Amino acid sequence: MTQLSNTAIQYAHQNRQRFLGELIDLLKIHSVSTLPEKKGDVRQAADWLAGKLTKIGLSGVQVLETAGHPVVYATYHNAGPAAPTVLIYGHYDVQPAEPLELWESGAFEPTVRGDNLFARGASDMKGQVIASIAAIESILETSKLPVNVTFIIEGEEEIGSPNLGAFISENKQLLSCDFALNPDSGILGPDIPSITYALRGLAYFELRITGPNQDLHSGLFGGIIHNPAQALCELVAGMHDAEGRITLPGFYDRVRPLDAEERAELARLPVNEAVYKKQTGAEVLWGEAGYTAVERLGARPTLEVNGLLSGFTGEGSKTVLPSKAMAKVSCRLVPDQDPNQVYQQMLEYLDKNSPNTIRYELIKLAGAPASISDRNSLSVEAMAGAMEQVWGKRPVFRREGGSVPVVGQFQQILGVETVNAGFGLPDDNYHAPNEKLHLPTWHRGIDTLIYFFDNLVV
Amino acid sequence: MTQLSNTAIQYAHQNRQRFLGELIDLLKIHSVSTLPEKKGDVRQAADWLAGKLTKIGLSGVQVLETAGHPVVYATYHNAGPAAPTVLIYGHYDVQPAEPLELWESGAFEPTVRGDNLFARGASDMKGQVIASIAAIESILETSKLPVNVTFIIEGEEEIGSPNLGAFISENKQLLSCDFALNPDSGILGPDIPSITYALRGLAYFELRITGPNQDLHSGLFGGIIHNPAQALCELVAGMHDAEGRITLPGFYDRVRPLDAEERAELARLPVNEAVYKKQTGAEVLWGEAGYTAVERLGARPTLEVNGLLSGFTGEGSKTVLPSKAMAKVSCRLVPDQDPNQVYQQMLEYLDKNSPNTIRYELIKLAGAPASISDRNSLSVEAMAGAMEQVWGKRPVFRREGGSVPVVGQFQQILGVETVNAGFGLPDDNYHAPNEKLHLPTWHRGIDTLIYFFDNLVV
Repeated sequence: MTQLSNTAIQYAHQNRQRFLGELIDLLKIHSVSTLPEKKGDVRQAADWLAGKLTKIGLSGVQVLETAGHPVVYATYHNAGPAAPTVLIYGHYDVQPAEPLELWESGAFEPTVRGDNLFARGASDMKGQVIASIAAIESILETSKLPVNVTFIIEGEEEIGSPNLGAFISENKQLLSCDFALNPDSGILGPDIPSITYALRGLAYFELRITGPNQDLHSGLFGGIIHNPAQALCELVAGMHDAEGRITLPGFYDRVRPLDAEERAELARLPVNEAVYKKQTGAEVLWGEAGYTAVERLGARPTLEVNGLLSGFTGEGSKTVLPSKAMAKVSCRLVPDQDPNQVYQQMLEYLDKNSPNTIRYELIKLAGAPASISDRNSLSVEAMAGAMEQVWGKRPVFRREGGSVPVVGQFQQILGVETVNAGFGLPDDNYHAPNEKLHLPTWHRGIDTLIYFFDNLVV
Repeated sequence: MTQLSNTAIQYAHQNRQRFLGELIDLLKIHSVSTLPEKKGDVRQAADWLAGKLTKIGLSGVQVLETAGHPVVYATYHNAGPAAPTVLIYGHYDVQPAEPLELWESGAFEPTVRGDNLFARGASDMKGQVIASIAAIESILETSKLPVNVTFIIEGEEEIGSPNLGAFISENKQLLSCDFALNPDSGILGPDIPSITYALRGLAYFELRITGPNQDLHSGLFGGIIHNPAQALCELVAGMHDAEGRITLPGFYDRVRPLDAEERAELARLPVNEAVYKKQTGAEVLWGEAGYTAVERLGARPTLEVNGLLSGFTGEGSKTVLPSKAMAKVSCRLVPDQDPNQVYQQMLEYLDKNSPNTIRYELIKLAGAPASISDRNSLSVEAMAGAMEQVWGKRPVFRREGGSVPVVGQFQQILGVETVNAGFGLPDDNYHAPNEKLHLPTWHRGIDTLIYFFDNLVV
């Protein structure tokens, strides 16, 4: 522990109540990005943050326009050109609070009960944003920030960040950095510090099958027409083999293999099949042969059916031979798969396997690359060390199954890796009623971030 | 041609305009059985028919109640116990007329344009019912009816005859007969007289697959859970083999084979693959190996997917791993398959093929046996001869792919075969806007029915 962080930690501890008060102020703002009538509230949250960042001494604070909600931008670049520059990501928008009747206290009336602060956005992620700002303030007020930092705090994460990619591309200079910090992440439990070093990408398709040119009577035409719903089932069923492997041609060619060291690290994670069964209600797990559940979830690609629709789906019976059938199918990708290549692989699969009795159309609905960080990089090591300083034990390293497009965008557009380390907990009810922030973990998070910035410069 | 039919035919020709007027009266009644607000109209049609049957001299005319719309019943049993008794089936209810804006003249304002009478129910089947009554009247007014006849005209055919099975079972004595005549059928063209001697049965299921106990995030859980939509596709895909044969255990065990003579007869039908392609828009036909399209349509059983539903089916993408998936699946059956046995075969298939990673539920939604008549029976031969007397050529014999449950019910409950011979045409737009009746064919139909009754007694 350096003198720098020591005094900064003291400052943070002395100011915990004030930081909490600031978080409560921010949580009172109804910044629900998906609701057009909350547009003014969303901007109010951006302005609040710009004010706060100015107050702690950052420069170049701006509320930058996008085609949607604005991005809050701020820098503190006084550590000199030799020091690393950290891009700190965040979002100030929140999910809708509905159903309101399930909240024990108002979603926008932050309330402390016991160790927890309850409010929409408390954990996801206004609490994490305030923790980052509090850590920077604590250092700036007590000594000198040893790194350069740039804040980029968007207002559209909860609606899929539709304008962020363009914003990053158009502002590469402003966002120039050595690596990014993404606190929109969590740890596995109050006593299980963890770092997410990889996130899966996504390639999402809609597959449309057309058979006869109109719905037919299944009695009058059944037996001479390839039913498009059946053809769809045949095509979807063939996308996995009996071992749970995906059969798209070349699908695994660019999948980065797991080495023994990483598999050993993943095996340390305090999750097992019983935990997954309890979380899902599945009596028996399933998946690609040769990999553990943890590996299948984070380190292996998948193909899922997200939706099926054809013919008559109401109550009772209708003897229709449908004209069309549709499946939504998406792949979770791992490094170094490319969403556009996977689209081509799906087309090749369809070309090879679809019969001449039907026609198909494949529509690309979404694509995002996977991301991975070097677990031995300076930045990840700085975070791991900081967690050990606070918790007294090394963090576990995890790969997460979901996709955080911004992390892939930072990697693709800015060419930098991201340290994913926030301090939410699995039971924080994000996107659900009674979202909460566990205050002891939040306090440890602020301390961890102070050590992290200190550890970045050896 | 006997003297009997000769004078009856003359009578029928002289009364064509009056018969048409009566049909128009009946067509003006909005007897749409599926619409609760038309309940009174439906009964009005029943009463109209009861009046008409009384007027032509039938006895025992009754409007018999069911749990739904009533059945019109009438007899003329004066031919003596040695003469055969014919049960004449019909229905006086019609399909809804919507979309009304597509009709060129009012659906319930019968209008003659050229050779056709346009109105809802003109062909399906008020025109056929009036033709049967007109034939009986023509005989009764000019000589003596050589057979006993019983009319059963229901009001629920267009809603699936939900109360007819019970009605037949409860009134076996009243309906006692040697065979039935079902004019709810058609011929292949104005110059192609035809007799439908077999109809397929139906076994209709809903297959419900459940995986996790709630919808999951496809990123956070994809890779360890057997996606129920995928499992459904795998099960449905496996229900056919590569030759288009159905894989339910024992499915073909009771299928009555086609002999060379019947195959030759079916090959005479003036339909071919080009006709089916044109009717369906399918560029390539499909089906069970080893059988012609005509055979696959009428004489072989099928399994069709009638509907699929799972997960997210709206616009765009949602990364859901669904909890549930559903397919509506139905089989068309041929003699001597049994719908309940097919349900057991489907259960056995699921038991053998469904993985332990999901749960399934199979719901029986509808079942009806197939029916077939001996093409060499007295009654079929009487109809074939009648058609030859009117058209100057032998009819073709066809098996129809659809199901008419009443024919199976007559076979199962009353133990009698049915002659399916009505005079609708393929382009009559039944169940569609601008339904019409081709009047020259209708006139031939009345004549044919007169000859038919005459031919029954040699």
